[in-house]
Amino acid sequence: MSKHGKLKIIPLGGLGEVGKNMTAYEFNHEILIVDAGIMFPRNDMLGIDYIIPDYEYLRGKANKVVGIVITHGHEDHIGAVHHLLNDIPAPVYATPLTLGLIEGKLARNNALGKASLNKVKAGGSVEVGSFKVEFFHICHSIPDAVGLGITTPAGLVVHMSDFKFDHTPVDGWQTDYAKLSEFSRRGVDLLLSDSTNSERPGWTPSETVIGPAFDKVFTEAKGRVIVATFASLISRVQQVADATAKHGRKMALAGPSMIDNVKIARKLGYLEIPDELLVPIDQALKMQDHKVTIICTGSQGEPSSIVGRLSAGTNRQFDLKPGDTVVLSSHPIPGNEEAISQTINRLLRRGAQVIYDAVAPVHVSGHASQEEQKLLFNLVKPKHFIPIHGELRHLKRHAQLAVEVGIPEEGVMVVENGQTVELSGGRIKLGERIPGGYVFVDGESIGEIDHDIMRERGKLARNGIFLIDISVDKLNGRLLHEPEIITRGFVSPEDAEALLPEVRKHIMDVVNNNGWESEKDIANAVRSYLYEETKRRPMVLVTLSKG
Amino acid sequence: MSKHGKLKIIPLGGLGEVGKNMTAYEFNHEILIVDAGIMFPRNDMLGIDYIIPDYEYLRGKANKVVGIVITHGHEDHIGAVHHLLNDIPAPVYATPLTLGLIEGKLARNNALGKASLNKVKAGGSVEVGSFKVEFFHICHSIPDAVGLGITTPAGLVVHMSDFKFDHTPVDGWQTDYAKLSEFSRRGVDLLLSDSTNSERPGWTPSETVIGPAFDKVFTEAKGRVIVATFASLISRVQQVADATAKHGRKMALAGPSMIDNVKIARKLGYLEIPDELLVPIDQALKMQDHKVTIICTGSQGEPSSIVGRLSAGTNRQFDLKPGDTVVLSSHPIPGNEEAISQTINRLLRRGAQVIYDAVAPVHVSGHASQEEQKLLFNLVKPKHFIPIHGELRHLKRHAQLAVEVGIPEEGVMVVENGQTVELSGGRIKLGERIPGGYVFVDGESIGEIDHDIMRERGKLARNGIFLIDISVDKLNGRLLHEPEIITRGFVSPEDAEALLPEVRKHIMDVVNNNGWESEKDIANAVRSYLYEETKRRPMVLVTLSKG
Repeated sequence: MSKHGKLKIIPLGGLGEVGKNMTAYEFNHEILIVDAGIMFPRNDMLGIDYIIPDYEYLRGKANKVVGIVITHGHEDHIGAVHHLLNDIPAPVYATPLTLGLIEGKLARNNALGKASLNKVKAGGSVEVGSFKVEFFHICHSIPDAVGLGITTPAGLVVHMSDFKFDHTPVDGWQTDYAKLSEFSRRGVDLLLSDSTNSERPGWTPSETVIGPAFDKVFTEAKGRVIVATFASLISRVQQVADATAKHGRKMALAGPSMIDNVKIARKLGYLEIPDELLVPIDQALKMQDHKVTIICTGSQGEPSSIVGRLSAGTNRQFDLKPGDTVVLSSHPIPGNEEAISQTINRLLRRGAQVIYDAVAPVHVSGHASQEEQKLLFNLVKPKHFIPIHGELRHLKRHAQLAVEVGIPEEGVMVVENGQTVELSGGRIKLGERIPGGYVFVDGESIGEIDHDIMRERGKLARNGIFLIDISVDKLNGRLLHEPEIITRGFVSPEDAEALLPEVRKHIMDVVNNNGWESEKDIANAVRSYLYEETKRRPMVLVTLSKG
Repeated sequence: MSKHGKLKIIPLGGLGEVGKNMTAYEFNHEILIVDAGIMFPRNDMLGIDYIIPDYEYLRGKANKVVGIVITHGHEDHIGAVHHLLNDIPAPVYATPLTLGLIEGKLARNNALGKASLNKVKAGGSVEVGSFKVEFFHICHSIPDAVGLGITTPAGLVVHMSDFKFDHTPVDGWQTDYAKLSEFSRRGVDLLLSDSTNSERPGWTPSETVIGPAFDKVFTEAKGRVIVATFASLISRVQQVADATAKHGRKMALAGPSMIDNVKIARKLGYLEIPDELLVPIDQALKMQDHKVTIICTGSQGEPSSIVGRLSAGTNRQFDLKPGDTVVLSSHPIPGNEEAISQTINRLLRRGAQVIYDAVAPVHVSGHASQEEQKLLFNLVKPKHFIPIHGELRHLKRHAQLAVEVGIPEEGVMVVENGQTVELSGGRIKLGERIPGGYVFVDGESIGEIDHDIMRERGKLARNGIFLIDISVDKLNGRLLHEPEIITRGFVSPEDAEALLPEVRKHIMDVVNNNGWESEKDIANAVRSYLYEETKRRPMVLVTLSKG
């Protein structure tokens, strides 16, 4: 069967992480979208709730989109599904657990009605337009995750989303090595694969190493055990439940996302938690401390999470007690290190025992390290390779590994979001460049926050504002009364008391001596004066009325 | 010699890191200060240049301060000397290199004239009031660092500032183990010691492991080698110079702090760099690329540093070229991870080879790991122990190590900044609590920025401002003209165009229908309206004139 046609690979989304939250494939004017996730903002993205991929290119071809395939149920892969479906109402394909989590999300966003949701089991396949998509099981820190074999007339692409080669996964379900070998026999024209841990030598430990660590924590805990993790880290929830049962405790779920996800995963059979192990949180709070496990969110130090509020003493339903053991069972997302460290210190200050990855192996990565990445190359033997899921530093390292393993250098292509690649005639080359950025979501508004607004916020944040309201006589231009001044985030009230009369005098001089033509001149004069006096540069705004 | 009197230990300063930038000892109304450093602000400390310890307590007793001892020349130990001397003009004692770096700092801040600077060599001692202070050499990532044996009538305290037990230090100068043993024989009543790496198992690698890593980098580099590190990491500068010489290159220094520090260290004999190895930067830029090493600052991704500007393409003196190799030879300071990662990605995008600690051992920590910390306990055999230099999480871990090694639990005291400890009658107990926070330095102003201002800046940063200027008729309270509105950091100009006419109408309704008594009522009405429309909460300010 000779190959023909041109497949365009479109990496999108993610905050500098290529193809992290979305990748698309275009063949013959048909488009297949893989994943639709969100990212959390960087520290310098002020006031932003989260970020979604800029899929402007796809929106412009919405009627060409034949399907949306989701690889697994983590937020960075499903979190933007309701935004995407709003613009591109294509059928969604995913495995049962992933689909269950998507349903939950759509329901919470009142977007369930219109969606066409289609179940495909790992090992199964589906034909979507010209794309034949084979779903095969891979291990990750959530059950029912899949990689994709995507066959088009232009060739076979293997799309590895987040994965690790875990030989003893929590659910006992191994990666489908046979399928990877089968692809290899059929001939893989292009591999895309997870670069997250490409800087990490060796092999990522199995999820099950956490078992003994939890066992130790539960053995030593004198009071309640409070475990914080991601609500979508379903495998971790299973492990906490197992430890809870083994140590004769009961488990309570705290927080709506945790309760929702556990409910869905239990209903679908991906979590084995007997009814009698679970107690409602209000009942747990009345039980003896050493009989209780609470599992909740907040492992990233988010101030509004349960653990965040516990550390600050502002949680409504219950407080931390001396004797509590708090386990942070996740790794810091880059940028969250400070917040997590502060949370740990606050919890310690309140007398809790705190267990986190630096003191005990209560978390392992869900992503393949270098030896696993190399094994994948050797299993799949792709002709071409595009590293995805990582920042440029990770992609470059991953590309280097591919070359070390024997993939020819000219077959490895490092691209960034929006840089398309074309597979045709069994070769790859750079395609057109399309928008590949991200879109801010702040409150209910999407995409209305742009980089100019962010810059203004940054400026406000650094030195505050200095606001002057003046009224002048429309005939002679002289001040009608003393300028009114409001400052925020600039100087303390005591300093303002000393500074403001002088500034007022200065403004009156400028205005009454006609040293100005517009508000801008007054603002500039004040700006210089303030810098002279304080060496700070607040944003100076002038409002002027003529009377 | 029986012990008598009461020694008060006063941990100060550092951003949650106990005693990091300053510790004081008070005996019989005499005070000895150890170190006077700065810290860099956390990401949520908007617009702050740096932070110094709040030494309010000491300022109130300035005339009692008999001396200031500095343990080594890093910024977090010397950076606030000019601020401190301004308030407390006491004599300063330090080793030659440390003193040289302090002189440089005072000169740059026009504060050299008044200072009394006293040289004490490692191995020497000085009597300052009732304090006998013995300086003994320790290894760290800067030469001429010391620990202190502080003898008072109340007992002997060993104060270990930043240290590691490096068996092959760059300058060949070992830690003074003999002195530590001598203290042990004399009987150490209290040890204070560096907790930075208390979560790190094992033994910190020697500084010399960097040699082979640099050797490999220089061997493989086809063009210029640009090494970024801290200007005060003098040992690293020596290593870069050695690699430069070995590979037949010349070295240029870029940036005033690097040039200053190297000059001082060479003059004092702590850096062995022959004249002919150095070339001025403008000459280096004209040489063949493979003959050039440039050493500069910016290893923390600081946008205003040379490497920060190179990565952004905004460096004035020279640009990055494809073929350049950039080495980031330092570890991320917590909170800088995002900025560093962005810098690495930008440098890669510009075609540079980038070498950083995740891909090659071009940096090692300057701080003792757990096995070294345990060795210190066993060498010194202190009766009591207070962990310093670390956040609460590090102190708790360090305390746990002390107990594991055999120091009785009741002899180990974890305290935070401002919580004094008293040593008297051979025992320690908690003393009074004094101010132990930190003071923001922003522009030329010190301490005028408080947490209220920071909160205001945070609020401005999250949602921007919405400013309304209205003029009303003083007789009937009706608007004299349409409200003037200015927004910053809130919505885009296009969105403002749609939103503002409606807001204006809303304000006119409120005002003209007398639905208000003060500006506050108008602000509240607008706040609700804006939240309804945008789900954002900008800071709303109203100025009002009556005409």
